[in-house]
Amino acid sequence: MRLTVPIKLRWSDFDAYQHVNNAELLRILEEARIEAFWTRDDGSSAGTAILDGRPGADSMTLIARQEVEYLAPIPYSRAPLAIELWIGHLGGASLKLCYEIFSPDGVEPRVLFAKAATTLVMVDSTTGKPRRIDDAQRAAWEPYIEAPIEFSRR
Amino acid sequence: MRLTVPIKLRWSDFDAYQHVNNAELLRILEEARIEAFWTRDDGSSAGTAILDGRPGADSMTLIARQEVEYLAPIPYSRAPLAIELWIGHLGGASLKLCYEIFSPDGVEPRVLFAKAATTLVMVDSTTGKPRRIDDAQRAAWEPYIEAPIEFSRR
Amino acid sequence: MRLTVPIKLRWSDFDAYQHVNNAELLRILEEARIEAFWTRDDGSSAGTAILDGRPGADSMTLIARQEVEYLAPIPYSRAPLAIELWIGHLGGASLKLCYEIFSPDGVEPRVLFAKAATTLVMVDSTTGKPRRIDDAQRAAWEPYIEAPIEFSRR
Amino acid sequence: MRLTVPIKLRWSDFDAYQHVNNAELLRILEEARIEAFWTRDDGSSAGTAILDGRPGADSMTLIARQEVEYLAPIPYSRAPLAIELWIGHLGGASLKLCYEIFSPDGVEPRVLFAKAATTLVMVDSTTGKPRRIDDAQRAAWEPYIEAPIEFSRR
Repeated sequence: MRLTVPIKLRWSDFDAYQHVNNAELLRILEEARIEAFWTRDDGSSAGTAILDGRPGADSMTLIARQEVEYLAPIPYSRAPLAIELWIGHLGGASLKLCYEIFSPDGVEPRVLFAKAATTLVMVDSTTGKPRRIDDAQRAAWEPYIEAPIEFSRR
Repeated sequence: MRLTVPIKLRWSDFDAYQHVNNAELLRILEEARIEAFWTRDDGSSAGTAILDGRPGADSMTLIARQEVEYLAPIPYSRAPLAIELWIGHLGGASLKLCYEIFSPDGVEPRVLFAKAATTLVMVDSTTGKPRRIDDAQRAAWEPYIEAPIEFSRR
Repeated sequence: MRLTVPIKLRWSDFDAYQHVNNAELLRILEEARIEAFWTRDDGSSAGTAILDGRPGADSMTLIARQEVEYLAPIPYSRAPLAIELWIGHLGGASLKLCYEIFSPDGVEPRVLFAKAATTLVMVDSTTGKPRRIDDAQRAAWEPYIEAPIEFSRR
Repeated sequence: MRLTVPIKLRWSDFDAYQHVNNAELLRILEEARIEAFWTRDDGSSAGTAILDGRPGADSMTLIARQEVEYLAPIPYSRAPLAIELWIGHLGGASLKLCYEIFSPDGVEPRVLFAKAATTLVMVDSTTGKPRRIDDAQRAAWEPYIEAPIEFSRR
């Protein structure tokens, strides 16, 4: 099963080529991850959003690797991009997130702008050591495991 | 043969985790590419720096894919990072750039913070169509072809 | 009369001090302006949102000056900041926007994080020359004229 | 007396209007401040650069206000901007920095792109309370006190 997360662009995401900048796209994926996995401001969790991302939280996620395939330039739009997100692999202390970045809902034809994957490692904020994904996290995330994304060019 | 490009960090490259942000690292690679491949302000070329990156240039480079492996958090330093850069593959209209991002020169021990690769496609600015890498470009770039970077985790 | 525009923060707005970065705050004001004054993706206008901000539009707005007073560090929140926006002065080809940046709606106590003002000049995209604010623009914007913001420290 | 600090632009400083973005200019001023006032990586000080900006330092500087007058769009250049910097006012726990942002050295005609001022407050990192500028700081900075910058449009 996939999550679909709408992420609003900012004017500043666009570079002098008038496309969403290649690096800025990773910020947009960062926002999609936060929407999907972080608890609310009051720390309450909902669905997959069970990670405490607030400063001072006892664990944090570090990014081990990231891969992006840019399929079409992303034009400016006020409507949010539709980001489909799933878990390509759930390891002991890490997970591989997969993304497909689509044009805003309702815009025809629907365009797949980019594919991406991020490998996250859970670490203890104080020791910096990897930390096992616990049962509550597995239970919340397992429904969103699908086959990992396939990149065409390598 | 490799190029080594020093790139200065900015305070704003650091996120709330006090590391260079994962997306910001791509901006740093962007700067390294520009240093290595773009002509000077007056359009004069030098070594590998023969691409006219100025607004209105007749060709531009688009990014087809990008891959980064983050090996260690990058701490703040005033001294520039040492970015080693080479060409992992030189195609008809595209090239694969490979990078190793090291701690600033002179800092001991020397740390490899990240490995990355970017696939660039040359396109005609007006038509947006791919454009063959010409002989002058091949001549300037061939000395910098090495085996493509190997990523450990996939 | 004032407009209230909710603007969502991004994790990347936060710097190593774990506050919204001083420069990033201007991006947030930029987004508030766009929400308030730019037409929708299809070019349709609504209320004050009658400026065509799309690439290729025949006029654009340049920023002549900007002033920000930072009253309290802005902490991370998932809920959008509440930005109050009004027109402090409506000139021949320019307008002065005033902003008060408040904590998200519903968060108690309500905090005024910053005050700001931006002077915008309308210019013709092709000639770059200032362009008079037309009657339709005046009619749409005049209800939002209030006394210009006062800055305490100067 | 003024300091002149060269600051290199990044491609990502440019927005879809192909000018240095108004918010990004504040990042460039941030870099100029750091160059001028922060100690080196090893904590050693030189001239005006006597503030320890490293994570964990016992004091930090917060920005109380900022004002920018944009006089001309800043075009892309590989050569660094020449930023003239001086202290417009040295208070008990705060200082007002003034900047003039000029075209790169050697480029004719020399263009003044922008004028800016930043009011900084020294605070204790742990208590967050203002902290008096000490004698060593006064001695290092007093030679750089000049009349505060004058803004034309207000």
